Amino acid sequence: MQMMQLNDCAQLLKARDNYLIITHRRPDGDTIGSAGALCVLLQAMGKTAHIFPNPEFTETYIQYVIPFLANDDFVPDTIVSVDTASEDLFPYGFSGNVDLSIDHHPSNTGYAKNTIVWAHCAACGELMLELAKELRAELTKELAEFLYVAIATDTGCFCYGNTTSDTFRAAAELIDCGADNGAINKRLFRTSSKERLALEGLIFSSLETYREGRISVATVTLDMMKKSGATEDDCDDIASLAGRVAGSNVSVTIKEKEKNLSKISLRTSRNVDASAICSKFGGGGHAMAAGCTIERGYDEAKSMLLDAIYEVMG
Amino acid sequence: MQMMQLNDCAQLLKARDNYLIITHRRPDGDTIGSAGALCVLLQAMGKTAHIFPNPEFTETYIQYVIPFLANDDFVPDTIVSVDTASEDLFPYGFSGNVDLSIDHHPSNTGYAKNTIVWAHCAACGELMLELAKELRAELTKELAEFLYVAIATDTGCFCYGNTTSDTFRAAAELIDCGADNGAINKRLFRTSSKERLALEGLIFSSLETYREGRISVATVTLDMMKKSGATEDDCDDIASLAGRVAGSNVSVTIKEKEKNLSKISLRTSRNVDASAICSKFGGGGHAMAAGCTIERGYDEAKSMLLDAIYEVMG
Repeated sequence: MQMMQLNDCAQLLKARDNYLIITHRRPDGDTIGSAGALCVLLQAMGKTAHIFPNPEFTETYIQYVIPFLANDDFVPDTIVSVDTASEDLFPYGFSGNVDLSIDHHPSNTGYAKNTIVWAHCAACGELMLELAKELRAELTKELAEFLYVAIATDTGCFCYGNTTSDTFRAAAELIDCGADNGAINKRLFRTSSKERLALEGLIFSSLETYREGRISVATVTLDMMKKSGATEDDCDDIASLAGRVAGSNVSVTIKEKEKNLSKISLRTSRNVDASAICSKFGGGGHAMAAGCTIERGYDEAKSMLLDAIYEVMG
Repeated sequence: MQMMQLNDCAQLLKARDNYLIITHRRPDGDTIGSAGALCVLLQAMGKTAHIFPNPEFTETYIQYVIPFLANDDFVPDTIVSVDTASEDLFPYGFSGNVDLSIDHHPSNTGYAKNTIVWAHCAACGELMLELAKELRAELTKELAEFLYVAIATDTGCFCYGNTTSDTFRAAAELIDCGADNGAINKRLFRTSSKERLALEGLIFSSLETYREGRISVATVTLDMMKKSGATEDDCDDIASLAGRVAGSNVSVTIKEKEKNLSKISLRTSRNVDASAICSKFGGGGHAMAAGCTIERGYDEAKSMLLDAIYEVMG
């Protein structure tokens, strides 16, 4: 696939009009923040631009984009996706019709007519900031806050290992342009619903470790969901909790979807291939983060998965 | 009190020798990271410098400073405190003997013979970085990692509202000098002991809210400590958990110290004076974070405190 340079991307955005901006499924702060930033940028250039009302927008993020959502009768001339590596991630019928993909995933499949991928960026928002500068846009508080949400989300508020010195410099610039990082962080990263906290409580209270603590296992049962009052909206990034146990380098999260259906999420350090383990159960993913579904109850699924992990760890 | 300028502070450090660097009680990453950075700086200048082996150093941080700890028989000529606002915070006999206080707390009492306070810094580590530059020190990986630990700790890994664009720029610079932010963050902010997680589980499972969720209350009982296997070392920043409930602007943490002794930590938003409430029970602190001790069981202490809060909230 032919990769676009930043200035070509800017030229394309200047040349076209009537934009629909689309986000990926299970939308997070990076795709939503990047979409919001692009919409603000295009509107400031005098273009008509709206964001597709992704039915999976959650309560946490919807407030940021409400004023920018497209009406049902909007007919776009140009469709732009942000932060989206493949067409599988649009279950809403845009396949084959995306004019431009702006992304930071090295796995971008090249599904769009034009593609720009900056894989060295921790967040798509970092690329969007450079695009805004290429377009000589005014970095308003509104634009800066969208970009801050994008960058802070994909870096776990600057805590994940993908955070580079460029990421920090981008954040500094956005704060100087008025982004209220304290307020945004408080809302997105420092508070949770009471139901989410109750669910975390039940999960942490029942964490298990194996092999001298090198494997940690979290189980999320239907009963825990009921007891805590949590819904799917409260389960964002729940698979990261098991990895919080100090000393564990393989973490397993087993979610009971139905009585005999368990969804597994596996995270590993460099020396254990998560994808290889999950592929034994018909799943897959990346070397350090993979998943699968096992048609068994959670206890049986756990035994099966632990056996597969032991086999790889030796 | 006369405040020192940065270059005067640098001149003093160049002029003297045989340094003992002291940290505050309940030492955190900012005081330890700043102490480590100062020790590295001074040794690189050819000075003799050691860190006082604070008996309260916890397992989390001790590994960073072991090579720098003073032996019992070291007799210093110059005592420097870092990140320490008052002499109450040295329960080890340095009162009246501190030659230089390097700090960022506006409440610094001026207890030292020489004092530099940069209150605009989120962490003492930010001031230390500027001091290193003033001393034309080489920003080695070792120095950068001490400073990164300092800055990341006091900003809750860049999440708290005290984080400024200068803080972000300092972090960018330290990463460019080799600080392994991913590894440090994983250890300090993204993992916890199994016992700590179990304790958090019990706390989150029993969180209570009052007044339509505006008040959140966490209780930490002796029974919870026993059940989780947690020790005091696992209780760092435990008072921040209650504040994680979305929508709460007054959070109370009640820790059962003994059967009839409860330690209260109160955190509030701008419109409720935490210090005023705690002073009713003989405690005190800041407007938005205060504490007190009530000689009652935790349930009774909770009722008393809630009554006092209702009175203020109206």
